[in-house]
Amino acid sequence: MTSLSMGAMSMDAVSVIRTKRDRGEFSDEQIDWVIDAYTRGDVADYQMAALNMAILLNGMNRREISRWTAAMIASGERMDFSSLSRPTADKHSTGGVGDKITLPLAPLVAACGAAVPQLSGRGLGHTGGTLDKLESIKGWRAALSNEEMLSVLDSVGAVICAAGDGLAPADKKLYALRDVTGTVEAIPLIASSIMSKKIAEGTGSLVLDVKVGTGAFMKTIEDARELAATMVGLGTDHGVKTVALLTDMSTPLGLTAGNALEVRESVEVLAGGGPADVVELTLALAREMLAAAGVRDADPAKALADGSAMDAWRRMISAQGGDPDAPLPTSKEQHVVKAGASGVLTRLDAYDIGVAAWRLGAGRARKDDPVQAAAGVELHAKPGDTVTEGQRLLTLHTDTPERFEYALRAIEDSYDVAASGTAFTAAPVVLERIA
Amino acid sequence: MTSLSMGAMSMDAVSVIRTKRDRGEFSDEQIDWVIDAYTRGDVADYQMAALNMAILLNGMNRREISRWTAAMIASGERMDFSSLSRPTADKHSTGGVGDKITLPLAPLVAACGAAVPQLSGRGLGHTGGTLDKLESIKGWRAALSNEEMLSVLDSVGAVICAAGDGLAPADKKLYALRDVTGTVEAIPLIASSIMSKKIAEGTGSLVLDVKVGTGAFMKTIEDARELAATMVGLGTDHGVKTVALLTDMSTPLGLTAGNALEVRESVEVLAGGGPADVVELTLALAREMLAAAGVRDADPAKALADGSAMDAWRRMISAQGGDPDAPLPTSKEQHVVKAGASGVLTRLDAYDIGVAAWRLGAGRARKDDPVQAAAGVELHAKPGDTVTEGQRLLTLHTDTPERFEYALRAIEDSYDVAASGTAFTAAPVVLERIA
Repeated sequence: MTSLSMGAMSMDAVSVIRTKRDRGEFSDEQIDWVIDAYTRGDVADYQMAALNMAILLNGMNRREISRWTAAMIASGERMDFSSLSRPTADKHSTGGVGDKITLPLAPLVAACGAAVPQLSGRGLGHTGGTLDKLESIKGWRAALSNEEMLSVLDSVGAVICAAGDGLAPADKKLYALRDVTGTVEAIPLIASSIMSKKIAEGTGSLVLDVKVGTGAFMKTIEDARELAATMVGLGTDHGVKTVALLTDMSTPLGLTAGNALEVRESVEVLAGGGPADVVELTLALAREMLAAAGVRDADPAKALADGSAMDAWRRMISAQGGDPDAPLPTSKEQHVVKAGASGVLTRLDAYDIGVAAWRLGAGRARKDDPVQAAAGVELHAKPGDTVTEGQRLLTLHTDTPERFEYALRAIEDSYDVAASGTAFTAAPVVLERIA
Repeated sequence: MTSLSMGAMSMDAVSVIRTKRDRGEFSDEQIDWVIDAYTRGDVADYQMAALNMAILLNGMNRREISRWTAAMIASGERMDFSSLSRPTADKHSTGGVGDKITLPLAPLVAACGAAVPQLSGRGLGHTGGTLDKLESIKGWRAALSNEEMLSVLDSVGAVICAAGDGLAPADKKLYALRDVTGTVEAIPLIASSIMSKKIAEGTGSLVLDVKVGTGAFMKTIEDARELAATMVGLGTDHGVKTVALLTDMSTPLGLTAGNALEVRESVEVLAGGGPADVVELTLALAREMLAAAGVRDADPAKALADGSAMDAWRRMISAQGGDPDAPLPTSKEQHVVKAGASGVLTRLDAYDIGVAAWRLGAGRARKDDPVQAAAGVELHAKPGDTVTEGQRLLTLHTDTPERFEYALRAIEDSYDVAASGTAFTAAPVVLERIA
């Protein structure tokens, strides 16, 4: 009597879809059921796609988002760091161009006394992925078992590795679906996706770096604020001390976008040098992480200056099979872009530079595309700098020179030069703090 | 260089989805591309599901709906009735409970001089399907080749058969998807679904019976008006003379809901008898169809009275292998529902009666479920009638008596009886006309 029981069934995919389509509020039971049934395959991709679009257009309130996140966490395993002697502090960035901050930050915070479990991802589209960057180091392995991960974390104080398949499998499936159905840009779904993984990962505290600007996912400060507040609320609801910094992503971070190029710059920062904006953001996030983890009296600037952060980096890379002394790959071909005018550089667009780096081979368009370790963009000036017509502005790097044409097309309108003497004030690195 | 060409591609499913998600207007090229790509399988079900939800929530304007309909027509073949000597007139009902009107109407209009090509469907949910009803006649076949269909149409003047797979295949695929993704209830999608099939079918004129009320798809007169006006506009845009009647579906039509039960009632109408509301609606639609087809001086009431409509019915049934003299199947089990009070029956809910007939076996919950020919509900009183406590109100028919319990649950609150002498005015059968 399938036909009759179907008619009488109160919980089914269509009724859940209708609830949100008609601007209703999900019950806890609906959320638990639909996430579980989707993970098991009882709710089809096309049903979840319709539901995602309804959520994108009609929203979810804080209770719904919190339950949705809890259901995604419950779809998989949770990690447990309670055996560690140090407090854990994690960081998540919503993604930007030249955003290599995780690389110097994790060993720096470890050197200051917290344990940093960084489960990271690969790049897709115009923003790079932390694992892609580290894989340009000879021998370095992203895939660790849970036991290996805990062991590196315990001995070094920091580990950067790939998230296992066991954490929030519902999110994994849902994210892949959102990516191909135009439903990525929904704040409730973005927030629950990020936070379900971070909470399942078991960290005690979390600092969010929410990027704002052309090169970021959130183009406006209002959207970034809403996303940050939603995530801070979710962390709090689930017992994780969570703080968010809104940071500028209208210009690339530092002077490099690409895999090996960003490792090189990160090592410069760990050696006490590096571009000012990268150093400033690394220190700001380190201080937030240490405060959230309850570590007092640590001085991150000193740890950069005295070499202790560099020591932690070398031990972290070595523990995952990498050779911190091996030379980094360099590109087979370079193309120099020269300044078209003299004056003050007032704009260097993060999105355009990100797309150029992607097209040069640093990123991927599809999940299984390979990336080039040496590809990317080097910047020779940043907004606020004085430039002279004909001087080097950018160097494009790739191993496959037929890509130059596509990359150059991306940066046709990527910068502005104003008359010498024009007043220019750069955006601050950290725009706001939400806790 | 797949990864690069993807980045540069201007037409892809996600960009089409984003257009409507962000409240934009589709270009003609986007509509043509997405319907064609979906029909070919290059756009996935989950992408079309997200797009449907965006259309449901953000709408389409008249140009978009017209182009969407044209693209669905272009996805398949078009029929051509220009070889017929008579003008063609078609009718479509949005579906109701006890809506057997097609059965007497097609032969009646044929008897009056127009050719009626009725490509019909099967029932799903609480409304019955014309083909299911006719299949309760011994030997009758719904599946005809295009040649057979034209031949019946030419010799009899009317044919009721299953739509071939060649007409608007995009609609077929899309409708099945909408059914399981909560996106049926979108006026642009409903209108284009109905009209793409009707226009591809090649009729010269079309009368739409848009039902309004609890038993109908459109619960309010406003929604029904919008749907009717949208469909009339689409017909006009595609050169089909189109008229719509909005008709009442708060009460079942006639005194039967079920397959063989409705055939019996239809034959009564063709014999010059039958319930007043069925006769009234059949005549109203017949007059509209004849006027739309340009047939003058025909008198449908006379064609019912003088047996010429019955003759056309008998020839139409015989031409499709049916025996018009074979006794209709009767149910193995009956259950009588008695009036719980004396007075005036003021409400007999069409939806509840439809669900009861469905649960008794007259309809199906899934596409491949069988239906029972003899199952259904017989009404012994209609709103406005005086009833006495304990008198028969409904007779439930089924071959599988375990279904009575489910059917009775559907009709627990299906009727109201007011004190004797209470003034009662029934809704008119035809509420409005839109042309």
